[in-house]
Amino acid sequence: MATALESVKERFATISDLGHARSLLFWDERTQMPPGGAHARSEALATLARLSHEMVIADDLADAIERAAEEVRDLDPDSDDARLIRVTRRDTAKARRVPSELRAELARAASVGEQAWVKARERSDFGAFLPHLERNVELAREYVGCFAPYEHPYDPLLDDYEPGMRTAELKPVLAALRDGLSPLIERLAAADPPDNACLHGDFPLAAQGELARSVLDGIPIAADERRLDETVHPFATSIAPTDLRITTRYEEGYVGTAVWAVIHEAGHAMYENGIAPELARGPLGHGLSLGFHESQSRMWENWVGRSRPYLAHLLPTLRSAFPDAFGTVGAEELYRAANRVEPSLIRVEADEATYNLHIIVRFELEVGLFNGELEPAELPEEWNRRMRDYLGVEVPDDAHGVLQDVHWAGGAFGYFPTYALGNVIAGQLWELARAALPDLDGQIGRGEPEPLRDWLRAQLHRHGAKFEPAEMIERLTGGPLDPTPLLRQLEAKYAEVYGLG
Amino acid sequence: MATALESVKERFATISDLGHARSLLFWDERTQMPPGGAHARSEALATLARLSHEMVIADDLADAIERAAEEVRDLDPDSDDARLIRVTRRDTAKARRVPSELRAELARAASVGEQAWVKARERSDFGAFLPHLERNVELAREYVGCFAPYEHPYDPLLDDYEPGMRTAELKPVLAALRDGLSPLIERLAAADPPDNACLHGDFPLAAQGELARSVLDGIPIAADERRLDETVHPFATSIAPTDLRITTRYEEGYVGTAVWAVIHEAGHAMYENGIAPELARGPLGHGLSLGFHESQSRMWENWVGRSRPYLAHLLPTLRSAFPDAFGTVGAEELYRAANRVEPSLIRVEADEATYNLHIIVRFELEVGLFNGELEPAELPEEWNRRMRDYLGVEVPDDAHGVLQDVHWAGGAFGYFPTYALGNVIAGQLWELARAALPDLDGQIGRGEPEPLRDWLRAQLHRHGAKFEPAEMIERLTGGPLDPTPLLRQLEAKYAEVYGLG
Repeated sequence: MATALESVKERFATISDLGHARSLLFWDERTQMPPGGAHARSEALATLARLSHEMVIADDLADAIERAAEEVRDLDPDSDDARLIRVTRRDTAKARRVPSELRAELARAASVGEQAWVKARERSDFGAFLPHLERNVELAREYVGCFAPYEHPYDPLLDDYEPGMRTAELKPVLAALRDGLSPLIERLAAADPPDNACLHGDFPLAAQGELARSVLDGIPIAADERRLDETVHPFATSIAPTDLRITTRYEEGYVGTAVWAVIHEAGHAMYENGIAPELARGPLGHGLSLGFHESQSRMWENWVGRSRPYLAHLLPTLRSAFPDAFGTVGAEELYRAANRVEPSLIRVEADEATYNLHIIVRFELEVGLFNGELEPAELPEEWNRRMRDYLGVEVPDDAHGVLQDVHWAGGAFGYFPTYALGNVIAGQLWELARAALPDLDGQIGRGEPEPLRDWLRAQLHRHGAKFEPAEMIERLTGGPLDPTPLLRQLEAKYAEVYGLG
Repeated sequence: MATALESVKERFATISDLGHARSLLFWDERTQMPPGGAHARSEALATLARLSHEMVIADDLADAIERAAEEVRDLDPDSDDARLIRVTRRDTAKARRVPSELRAELARAASVGEQAWVKARERSDFGAFLPHLERNVELAREYVGCFAPYEHPYDPLLDDYEPGMRTAELKPVLAALRDGLSPLIERLAAADPPDNACLHGDFPLAAQGELARSVLDGIPIAADERRLDETVHPFATSIAPTDLRITTRYEEGYVGTAVWAVIHEAGHAMYENGIAPELARGPLGHGLSLGFHESQSRMWENWVGRSRPYLAHLLPTLRSAFPDAFGTVGAEELYRAANRVEPSLIRVEADEATYNLHIIVRFELEVGLFNGELEPAELPEEWNRRMRDYLGVEVPDDAHGVLQDVHWAGGAFGYFPTYALGNVIAGQLWELARAALPDLDGQIGRGEPEPLRDWLRAQLHRHGAKFEPAEMIERLTGGPLDPTPLLRQLEAKYAEVYGLG
């Protein structure tokens, strides 16, 4: 006789296998699929999403979870089984509060909205996009309504990406980040920027592909558990913890993408790679939140990948790939080139410091849309004002402003803050890692990233989605989410790179 | 209010989308997947198969089909909707006759059997494989029992791959093929074989990849609806009719695979590519049987790909890819080299003529296993005797004999005859095509295969799985399955190539 716990696990193994298929279909669509397959692929993906959702909201699953909760009542609340029931109870209850018609309407409006956005962005025509945006916001407000009462109307949205995170908790963190970064960026903008000419030039794509492979070989993921492909918008996806698909793009005129996009995506992949095998193929068998995921990609990209020891170690590889460009470049010059700060208009091209301000602009606007202070029509003006205030840049048109990102077009409100959260968490983790690994710089400089990977695995990766973000931060640091380490490290780094007093 | 017909279509759209995902997982496993993904992939594929099967045998689907049958009662029986109900009624009824426990046991024994077979074949140890084979045969006999009463116990097996085909119908066709081919092959074995040295040598793999791409570019499938990848055992799969995945392998010492395996697999892909768009994403949206599928791959491989005009057209491409090997080879020499007949031990390496005898050996043994004349332990002796009688070759060990194929290890009885059926049907179709397209040779010689593709599409491809094999042969030829055209064409071709009287 199977226990209710076993039956819950079996259900989620099926849901997880559907997720495996969905991830593969998604990856294939972006890296391998002949263009003729697009229409059929949309239909197949929609069907798999619907089947998964039907399984998650099934009444008999909810019943089995309640019975299983009784079965695990005496277990250690931090045991895998107790946590599995806690997480699935929470997730299925949330999913069951949304009527199927609303969910279908959200999906439909997102799909229509994305198509409209593509055209509107091309012509920088916010007016043409506005009705679609208004529809998405209207539906998202209705979605929020399903979770009343809530502390803040933005909470249910944020919670979709950062389980348990509250707006009241996030707001002061991002405000402190904004207030710390804005003056720093102002000081840097007034100073002499490091020369980054060596990263720009003419880099044949085949050689960049070789370089990207070398970079990936230096990341501690077993070669038979991952692959690297080219795509338009780089991403990483886990088909299974031992089947990781990393993608990148190459720019003929800039070699940085072949290095840092690969390290970034490999950081995501390494997180999934480290999840305890006993959690795989189940509801805890993935990273715990988008913010924590981004903490891993950002840490590897920025704190490892743009560090002095890493770049000194990489330099011979760069020189052998591009002797003309890097033959006479020294390690210090490369380090400075990799750490130039420059306020700009486009988020995805922003450097490590200004990036957070791009996110804060979006976060403040999103909160405004849901607390009743802002309507979609007002977004361009509010966007442009903030870009001026926080980053000191003038937005010339909406294509370079409010229309630049796909998220709102696809109805994804509450997603943006997780990017900045990733940086904040990475800052906290990096301080801990430095303390735990006194020879970290030496290890990175010798091309030995395994001790850092092992530390991260033990502290974070292996737990998968067992804990909520706030719990995990508490377990790691003994305290709450805190932007101070990130600000402290950015201050120190740039003061040195820019030679500020 | 949705009609029952609409609800049946909706169910099968979902089942078809699961098929889309399964095909992609299968293709990815064989062409892209990092080895670390193998275990998770098996589980995901098993789950998708189980979900599909549960949907096919669901009681409410059976009810909806019965209600839909009433709705379509007055339609033209050859209309898409009437055929859809006829086919789904038949397929679901067949699936519902097999108890779930037996189906699970069949899958388990097949998986265990395949693993045991890999080891047994390596050591040429039939004894080690025998218990697994016995278990597969026992379960297959039990499976057959689910369909009693039947005309012949082999019928339900054959029907899984060739819907509606009966053993009584197939037996005389294959016997006539055997009796026609054996003496021909004996005569050819006694004659001077054509020199095929130009196909053997040292062909760098990169250049073979280029050659394979050129060959595929000459096949009329839109470039944005297919791709070509490398694999161990070539196959083609349809993710959707406009998303076709063709695979091949390359042999350093033999250039033929890069040509004929690609044409063969492209023949399969072209069939799926030609299915009417209104049948896609439904139960009729695929080729009608394995035999008909093989008729397309074989026709393109052998009747087009080994023809004088095709090879004369290909020769400049071969010369530019491999100037040393083909610089001084003439078109006639290439044609003769491509049409050498040689009795051999291994089916997958056999030529066009002897191939059918390999199949007939297997067919006769399979029929014996299910009509009570033969037990698995007797297979090696019976195999070797037939190889001697029909092909004149001595089997040195079971690895080169009864252990060479995976089919029986995986419990696939009834599959082999479809290979020979494909050749027989291709022979019938080729005679019709020649009559319908008087300039066929000229078109092929000018690199214009579109008229042949269009004719096949109109006669066969567009109908998908609307008709059963026997009906389709009747529609095409006005008569039954008939090996005479194939025998006539092989006789004529080899008499000329071998200069026989």
